[in-house]
Amino acid sequence: MDFKEKLKEYQQQINQELEKYVRKQKSPEQKLNQSMEYSLMAGGKRLRPVLVLATYQLFKDDIEKCMPYAVAIEMVHNFSLIHDDLPGIDNDDFRHGKPTNHKQFNEATAILAGDGLLNDAYHVISQDLLNSDTERTAKRIRILNEFSEAVDRMIAGEYIDTEWEGKQITKQELEYIHENKTGALLKLCVRMGAILADCTEIELQGLSNYADKIGLAFQIKDDILSEEGDEAILGKPVGNDKELEKCTYVSRYGLQGAKDILDKITKEAIEKLEKYGDKAEFLKELALYIQNRNK
Amino acid sequence: MDFKEKLKEYQQQINQELEKYVRKQKSPEQKLNQSMEYSLMAGGKRLRPVLVLATYQLFKDDIEKCMPYAVAIEMVHNFSLIHDDLPGIDNDDFRHGKPTNHKQFNEATAILAGDGLLNDAYHVISQDLLNSDTERTAKRIRILNEFSEAVDRMIAGEYIDTEWEGKQITKQELEYIHENKTGALLKLCVRMGAILADCTEIELQGLSNYADKIGLAFQIKDDILSEEGDEAILGKPVGNDKELEKCTYVSRYGLQGAKDILDKITKEAIEKLEKYGDKAEFLKELALYIQNRNK
Repeated sequence: MDFKEKLKEYQQQINQELEKYVRKQKSPEQKLNQSMEYSLMAGGKRLRPVLVLATYQLFKDDIEKCMPYAVAIEMVHNFSLIHDDLPGIDNDDFRHGKPTNHKQFNEATAILAGDGLLNDAYHVISQDLLNSDTERTAKRIRILNEFSEAVDRMIAGEYIDTEWEGKQITKQELEYIHENKTGALLKLCVRMGAILADCTEIELQGLSNYADKIGLAFQIKDDILSEEGDEAILGKPVGNDKELEKCTYVSRYGLQGAKDILDKITKEAIEKLEKYGDKAEFLKELALYIQNRNK
Repeated sequence: MDFKEKLKEYQQQINQELEKYVRKQKSPEQKLNQSMEYSLMAGGKRLRPVLVLATYQLFKDDIEKCMPYAVAIEMVHNFSLIHDDLPGIDNDDFRHGKPTNHKQFNEATAILAGDGLLNDAYHVISQDLLNSDTERTAKRIRILNEFSEAVDRMIAGEYIDTEWEGKQITKQELEYIHENKTGALLKLCVRMGAILADCTEIELQGLSNYADKIGLAFQIKDDILSEEGDEAILGKPVGNDKELEKCTYVSRYGLQGAKDILDKITKEAIEKLEKYGDKAEFLKELALYIQNRNK
């Protein structure tokens, strides 16, 4: 199976799993549930849960064991998108080519839908903990702890990104934003997959380095697409960053400078996977996919 | 020690504990941390953590064992206040006699501070799980699960309260709002204290009934205070509910009708504690305190 087929298979498995968590029954709060579903099932690349599953499969095959964590991380990701899009933060009207949550529903619903998805992520993890035996529990508690730390970093990163809008920032400050805003969560995905698959601490360290690299690559590519991407493909306006005077890799290094950095760290990411040989083919291709994506 | 002294002692213990979780160190996101601290340390009655500690002390004395859960629930409570006050939801300018979080900071900060407090609650619980031995872990996982369910209910309740503004609602609908919006979290507090103290399932059931009653009493009293309370003491405007055409016990049953229901369920709450004799004196007085409070 080539990369694109495997990616599609993962995405389908994830979408099927996410569907199980969508609450369809009639209730007074069903419109809130619909708004959570609207964002959660809006599509997107499912990059975070794919990373959990693919890292797990470096070691083991039974991916159903890590599905709750794949679901939880996608819930957290969608919570962050809904809140970031709010009028009080980025004030974005479109996401994945569809109206943002507060545009489709209303602001109150979007705030509470985001809250609900963040909370649901922990509920999903708590359910898995309830069903775990003693031996598996310790690893899952470690993951719960890392999970809450990574979400904490993501929220801090989003805050700084907003706070520093229009400010001339240093290289260190730019990296701090990305490490927190996107990097922490992507690293968590890789670490969850690896820890759930009983990897060694040395393997965990190497894979964390891979995750750091692709996390940074992901953000740089985002900045590049925000500058020169195709609005029709991206499903959101291009050039907004410049208008908002956002600090990005493009505004800091220029378009070509940002592309050069992207190439370099993508290579470095792939090098971190050498010891896994063919088993790591998908994760290597994923690094290239992040580098070359057009949305 | 009489009730008021004991309440003050609990509140001081809780405030001291909360202080430990406030991040004072310099960081790019320190203003976000300050805004979280602003709401978390703004005062308030600390009713939820007091309930955890007082229920625990029906059975055991070493309250430090339940402090992480007392802290976590107060974080969740403050997350919900910050988000409910937002312009997109209730649009309130004052809370505890001080500007609301988005008024003191700004909307983006308030949204993210609320997110941060909800997430921190789970981080605090995850830390306690990391430090627990196998025997204690199972109970804490049960609590984590109930915790996430109660927060889910609280968010749903807030949603419906917003959704149904101005609508003529039935008695059942009014009760549904309260059971979810305030009741679920107050019940969780009592259940956490009881489970942590190794109570029996029958004791847990009886105490859950007590919690249901005081939860309802708390909400009815809130409705009464919103109608006839003293703005200077409450620290927030009075009569807002009427203006927003909110569905409350007062709008549904009239002021005297609401007071009669309050008296009845307070008595019923106290009856649930008979078997604990003097040990339950504080929780009995707490029910009366909820009934008679002026803020």
